[in-house]
Amino acid sequence: MINHYPASIIELIKNLSRLPGIGEKTAERLAMHILHASRKEAEKLSQSIVELKNKVRLCSRCFSLSDNELCAICQDPSRIQQLLCVVEQPGDMVALEKSGAFKGLYHVLQGVLSPMDGVGPEDIRLQELFSRIETENIQEVVIATGTSMEGEATASYIAERLENRPVKLTRIASGIPIGGDLKYVDQVTLRKAMESRHGF
Amino acid sequence: MINHYPASIIELIKNLSRLPGIGEKTAERLAMHILHASRKEAEKLSQSIVELKNKVRLCSRCFSLSDNELCAICQDPSRIQQLLCVVEQPGDMVALEKSGAFKGLYHVLQGVLSPMDGVGPEDIRLQELFSRIETENIQEVVIATGTSMEGEATASYIAERLENRPVKLTRIASGIPIGGDLKYVDQVTLRKAMESRHGF
Repeated sequence: MINHYPASIIELIKNLSRLPGIGEKTAERLAMHILHASRKEAEKLSQSIVELKNKVRLCSRCFSLSDNELCAICQDPSRIQQLLCVVEQPGDMVALEKSGAFKGLYHVLQGVLSPMDGVGPEDIRLQELFSRIETENIQEVVIATGTSMEGEATASYIAERLENRPVKLTRIASGIPIGGDLKYVDQVTLRKAMESRHGF
Repeated sequence: MINHYPASIIELIKNLSRLPGIGEKTAERLAMHILHASRKEAEKLSQSIVELKNKVRLCSRCFSLSDNELCAICQDPSRIQQLLCVVEQPGDMVALEKSGAFKGLYHVLQGVLSPMDGVGPEDIRLQELFSRIETENIQEVVIATGTSMEGEATASYIAERLENRPVKLTRIASGIPIGGDLKYVDQVTLRKAMESRHGF
């Protein structure tokens, strides 16, 4: 359907269509926009794609996304150095940062334990987590892996491994989303929320 | 809201957000996809953006988008060389090509007459159209500008200018879209369709 364009337009449409959520129609519209945009704007976009691949790496301490050896949070002395939050993915860390609810440091596992997919403890950054807890002066570890089966299993594994260490272990709470109507909340969440009920 | 990412990710998110229909959330998702895509895939995307700006130009004969001096249609001897369709924009030509309904040549005006916006006959490719009609052996000109006020005015202008030339002039038909329900068709289109009614 797009082969009525010159080859270089078709090439861009094809490459844009590979992006998630971008169909051929949208890719066509984006390509037309880029075609009519200034050369400077197009070059900036093109450049920033390559720069991303060249510059972004994992922070050597917490394994979040970073432009430098250490990420901005690990370099920030105003963060609470004794408080460590364990998350699955860089995106989880970004979500927590957006919420503004956490002022400590992070540890990004880069995945969860999933024996079915062949992901064991040595495949995610667990050894690095345990080393940090030994060597850094961590007082509390908040386990904020997801509430999927794998997320829960990973949380349990970490809890077991740290059972006898002199560090406080907590789990991020689950329950009914704020602003949510009970009737739209799934049964598993409702059950969990009921079990976790607490005094005022 | 995106400033919890490293600078190079923020830069890409910003540049992607400038594209039409791409909000910050979508740009964030696209940037994460590009981050996790292979280097080759990212480089291909980056490269194709710059290539587009470097390679695409207007066909020197019909002013459609082309990678070469002459576009693929102008170079194709199997197209009916005596039949010329006048459209406003390259996208209109692509739409007609997709329909497969036209086998002649095109002339892409690159706009419409719009005195309100200061667009006169000398600002769109009208002189080139009239020259082609004089020098090429054109038998029929199908005016397929849009049905906006400006599109109609441009069609009328062309018709007037070619009135006494030995060339057949036609206008692409307007009416009720195929598969459309009459009750959803706007009044102007209905009126036009009724006026243009014809025998079986």
